[in-house]
Amino acid sequence: MFKHDKQLLHEVKVDAPNPNYAAMLQEQLGGPQGELKAALQYLSQSFRIKDKEIKDLFLDIAAEELSHMEMVATAINLLNGHNLDAKNATIGNIEAHVLTGLAPALTNASGQLWTAAYVNETGDLAADILSNIAAEQRAKVVYEYLYRQINDKGVRDTIDFLLNREEAHNTLFREAFNKLQDTGSLKDWGITKDSRLYFDLSTPGKYFDINQPQPPSFNNPDNSQANQNLQ
Amino acid sequence: MFKHDKQLLHEVKVDAPNPNYAAMLQEQLGGPQGELKAALQYLSQSFRIKDKEIKDLFLDIAAEELSHMEMVATAINLLNGHNLDAKNATIGNIEAHVLTGLAPALTNASGQLWTAAYVNETGDLAADILSNIAAEQRAKVVYEYLYRQINDKGVRDTIDFLLNREEAHNTLFREAFNKLQDTGSLKDWGITKDSRLYFDLSTPGKYFDINQPQPPSFNNPDNSQANQNLQ
Amino acid sequence: MFKHDKQLLHEVKVDAPNPNYAAMLQEQLGGPQGELKAALQYLSQSFRIKDKEIKDLFLDIAAEELSHMEMVATAINLLNGHNLDAKNATIGNIEAHVLTGLAPALTNASGQLWTAAYVNETGDLAADILSNIAAEQRAKVVYEYLYRQINDKGVRDTIDFLLNREEAHNTLFREAFNKLQDTGSLKDWGITKDSRLYFDLSTPGKYFDINQPQPPSFNNPDNSQANQNLQ
Amino acid sequence: MFKHDKQLLHEVKVDAPNPNYAAMLQEQLGGPQGELKAALQYLSQSFRIKDKEIKDLFLDIAAEELSHMEMVATAINLLNGHNLDAKNATIGNIEAHVLTGLAPALTNASGQLWTAAYVNETGDLAADILSNIAAEQRAKVVYEYLYRQINDKGVRDTIDFLLNREEAHNTLFREAFNKLQDTGSLKDWGITKDSRLYFDLSTPGKYFDINQPQPPSFNNPDNSQANQNLQ
Amino acid sequence: MFKHDKQLLHEVKVDAPNPNYAAMLQEQLGGPQGELKAALQYLSQSFRIKDKEIKDLFLDIAAEELSHMEMVATAINLLNGHNLDAKNATIGNIEAHVLTGLAPALTNASGQLWTAAYVNETGDLAADILSNIAAEQRAKVVYEYLYRQINDKGVRDTIDFLLNREEAHNTLFREAFNKLQDTGSLKDWGITKDSRLYFDLSTPGKYFDINQPQPPSFNNPDNSQANQNLQ
Amino acid sequence: MFKHDKQLLHEVKVDAPNPNYAAMLQEQLGGPQGELKAALQYLSQSFRIKDKEIKDLFLDIAAEELSHMEMVATAINLLNGHNLDAKNATIGNIEAHVLTGLAPALTNASGQLWTAAYVNETGDLAADILSNIAAEQRAKVVYEYLYRQINDKGVRDTIDFLLNREEAHNTLFREAFNKLQDTGSLKDWGITKDSRLYFDLSTPGKYFDINQPQPPSFNNPDNSQANQNLQ
Repeated sequence: MFKHDKQLLHEVKVDAPNPNYAAMLQEQLGGPQGELKAALQYLSQSFRIKDKEIKDLFLDIAAEELSHMEMVATAINLLNGHNLDAKNATIGNIEAHVLTGLAPALTNASGQLWTAAYVNETGDLAADILSNIAAEQRAKVVYEYLYRQINDKGVRDTIDFLLNREEAHNTLFREAFNKLQDTGSLKDWGITKDSRLYFDLSTPGKYFDINQPQPPSFNNPDNSQANQNLQ
Repeated sequence: MFKHDKQLLHEVKVDAPNPNYAAMLQEQLGGPQGELKAALQYLSQSFRIKDKEIKDLFLDIAAEELSHMEMVATAINLLNGHNLDAKNATIGNIEAHVLTGLAPALTNASGQLWTAAYVNETGDLAADILSNIAAEQRAKVVYEYLYRQINDKGVRDTIDFLLNREEAHNTLFREAFNKLQDTGSLKDWGITKDSRLYFDLSTPGKYFDINQPQPPSFNNPDNSQANQNLQ
Repeated sequence: MFKHDKQLLHEVKVDAPNPNYAAMLQEQLGGPQGELKAALQYLSQSFRIKDKEIKDLFLDIAAEELSHMEMVATAINLLNGHNLDAKNATIGNIEAHVLTGLAPALTNASGQLWTAAYVNETGDLAADILSNIAAEQRAKVVYEYLYRQINDKGVRDTIDFLLNREEAHNTLFREAFNKLQDTGSLKDWGITKDSRLYFDLSTPGKYFDINQPQPPSFNNPDNSQANQNLQ
Repeated sequence: MFKHDKQLLHEVKVDAPNPNYAAMLQEQLGGPQGELKAALQYLSQSFRIKDKEIKDLFLDIAAEELSHMEMVATAINLLNGHNLDAKNATIGNIEAHVLTGLAPALTNASGQLWTAAYVNETGDLAADILSNIAAEQRAKVVYEYLYRQINDKGVRDTIDFLLNREEAHNTLFREAFNKLQDTGSLKDWGITKDSRLYFDLSTPGKYFDINQPQPPSFNNPDNSQANQNLQ
Repeated sequence: MFKHDKQLLHEVKVDAPNPNYAAMLQEQLGGPQGELKAALQYLSQSFRIKDKEIKDLFLDIAAEELSHMEMVATAINLLNGHNLDAKNATIGNIEAHVLTGLAPALTNASGQLWTAAYVNETGDLAADILSNIAAEQRAKVVYEYLYRQINDKGVRDTIDFLLNREEAHNTLFREAFNKLQDTGSLKDWGITKDSRLYFDLSTPGKYFDINQPQPPSFNNPDNSQANQNLQ
Repeated sequence: MFKHDKQLLHEVKVDAPNPNYAAMLQEQLGGPQGELKAALQYLSQSFRIKDKEIKDLFLDIAAEELSHMEMVATAINLLNGHNLDAKNATIGNIEAHVLTGLAPALTNASGQLWTAAYVNETGDLAADILSNIAAEQRAKVVYEYLYRQINDKGVRDTIDFLLNREEAHNTLFREAFNKLQDTGSLKDWGITKDSRLYFDLSTPGKYFDINQPQPPSFNNPDNSQANQNLQ
């Protein structure tokens, strides 16, 4: 069951309306690396998870991503200001001015409608968690791009918070991954000769090779560097 | 420049036509974890890569995925047999019987048309390689699902080859990732307090926590277990 | 902020696995009249609503629809059982067997991926509430279609609950609509001659005409019939 | 059978070319509340309607919406002028300059391709008519947004005509709805306790409640206010 | 302006309900080679055509394709029969049973929603007419596939009519093409050396070469064979 | 099997960065008439072709279109320059600035994601080759539109090369078409009376008629004018 609290997870302010930036910020509401995608990906994956601890982690983060989506939408709403003004728009997505009456919409910055094609779920925990680690890294990158193109302090504070939360989720998903050794799609890695071949199909150049293929495993996200520091 | 050699990367045979399985196998031609997606994701990402070695790796694998796509399409073509027969279809995608005249199509097993929404590219090497590692893991999972639902020896050999190649790519992408330390989106990880918070939004239950967030780093895919074995 | 409670809004049970019905039920998870669409439509609309009471209503119902989505997904998950078995599928959407490892997916019954094109928002309260009343009516209809095609008592109980909740939401949205008289797009209705014309473009036949156009207004959903009964 | 008359339903003129406004106006050609959607929604719904009078109404309006689509396209064509000039475009959709050679296209103002996901049809008359009433209200809202952002008298005349026609259709659909009492999805409304519950899931705040749920019914669109005036 | 006549362009009968074939026939209602696509492609292209004769041809055929769409929908409606029965469906698209209440929908045979991505328009007459000739040829092919998979005499008569109409349109579009010599994109064909190169990129094998490139021109569709016969 | 050579098929240079033109040029990377579509259409069609010579032609051209795609992407990459700068964007597609870090993406100029709905394949050689001839003509038209809107000499050279290659492919596909007489969908053309009717559905005006319908056949693309010259 989902419950809603009218208080935002984290306060959202903007210094001034900025409709073009509102359109840019749509990327993280309705784009492929945005908050809606993250929330629905983790929620969808959670439905069949049996491991109690990992299921809880997925749902904690899914609920947080929904709460991020609300924050991003709040920022867009404030940035859109109070005037329909497509004439002065310079950004791809002008739906706020012709369709939604300045309300945030489920599209990216260029007006592409959100699609469930953005969501990856496989029913395999290793694959799903790797998908989520990658998704968090991409979300961070997009927030960095957006941060660099705005001076509004309120917007920057909001982006800074969200960007750091993606790092936190990334760290947590890796911790969850470390519990999976030799399960599901991680089993029997690299046992046929085909998994050790390298096809050098782009020429010239060959710089990599495969010796002993191992399934993915992360350095312990919490302790690795700490340990190094102690050595 | 791309060149085509009429010899397949790896021989493809099927024991007997099996139109319903042909429709199932469409998942890896035109689905979200399929070969076309992999080829176009790595190719798209490669266009702006400056690091010569990593660019070569991406293009070697992109060309191989295109060659895999050709293998999957060849298998589908053989499995489709020679009769239009939607009446005996039991699988979602019947386009082979009503649209393509038994030719393979760019759709998944249920008939959803391929979309570039499946492709992730960010211009950040760390994010892109993590996306690729996750994509390879998911592709392996789907091949495992397909393998378990067919007894045809020819098809199984083809899937076995492709599945192991995904493992090889996964291994290689991790090796490439290990070259990136502290660059791009891996910089300045976990330096704000927001990156160390845990929001326990799904109740009851809380099993994870964050101490010292570190950016993702993989155990060396080639040497880690080898090293362990030597200890 | 959204919070999640691991207890479902309403208990979900199924008498027995039924993978084909699981695929049918996907219609209300990821189809145009399904729970995800309802949740995201009301949530998106709510972001710019100023009226405190109507905003609260939209968010109460949005949170409930998310909770319905969780119920539908739970039912699908149980109905999918434990075997990958596309060979015995007879329904359009076989993604559970080849892509998601029996997990519920964000698609409709025939495998079409969910798209934000299903979501209507206009920034105008009258238009948005009319959209929601229509959406609730359509959701009820789809649940009726699904109810008639299953004998499983557990599934029927779940559908019965959800279907009646759509009625409740429909009733509430009409109550909210009745507060809007002569605001937004309801103003100045029918004041030009063009709004009173009838173009009889399909022949033969003409059965309707327009006299004094009025903006939409509902009989009071709670009291109207009661009042009639009292007369 | 459809027949075409080269005379427009209503004259279309523009004072001057205005390519950016042409792109904005695309919203009502190929957007979710546009004329193509309306025409195809009513036409699709009509195919299975048995009631002769309602079927005639749906087809009268479907044919008119096709004729509106032609008017909107004519206006876009005139506004696009005679020069390919994407450099001076400031609106999302530049396809007129790079793809269609200044011809109107089946996209919205931001370039999203038209999709049948916009069309709602259920085979249930009550649900379909409610969908249409909502669709007409939304179309009116979008025309109001567009009207407010242009001074061109020719364009304003065209929008004014179309906007008032949406009102007329809205009125007619309500008249049709009033014929449906207690049929289809309107039957047996509110007879279980679940249809009378209120889940107060967004806190703080609770302003609505349900007493005696009734199916939707409109005040008579033609006579209600007239009657009030007479009282 | 479009007008509708309740008489079909050509009578449609079916011998017996056949829900699975109804789903197959959806391909020509809402698929890429279907009637809706044809109607909207020719209509969209017509909006900017200046040549009076060619514009008339496009609109004659566009209106006819709309009328074909109505015929196909009528056939689907009859074939769907009177029972919701997804359990006995074996075809990809089960939306008739769970979403539309047995009404025809704007999807293809596998449930993919119709998209304007199917429509080609360029503002260049030569390119548009070539697109239309190809579209008519493809539509004929799909009708042939459908014809071969049904014995119902009523359905076969309908398909036979429609298939032959595609031939007629094809013939007419070629006649229109023959009026275009050396205009638009047909001008200055083959004047650079690049237009005479052959890149032999797929090996082994090279069977074609280019000598004197000429723009496309058709043998006169009406007279060519006749003339040959006279020689 | 596909192989990649790091040398481009043809050198690509740009005089200066031009991010807005980069967005325009996206049309030919990820739009409906772009290089990706051409490559995948010919490749998909080739999978079931039995005629050795025509199969070779399709694969030669498919490989070349992939190589063109690489050239277009290289040009976009250079034009995007080195600064994220959505504020100064004026073109629909701003994904380079907020999503891809200035890398080329699989979208058109307005940000619509590439979709396999652009690809036509029917399993019938005549229909497929006609589709390809039309596709090449459309691609040429789009390159002409793009050429007229840029002065950058490097970009113009690249477009000029690509445009002329489309002419070459067009010429070759017609040569292939001439080998097909009376096969597949070309058989039995115009033998029913329905194929000779003209429905004059758009009034006023009727300028075309059908006498002796013949299947499409092209004047010999290489020799026709040559022969005329010799006469």
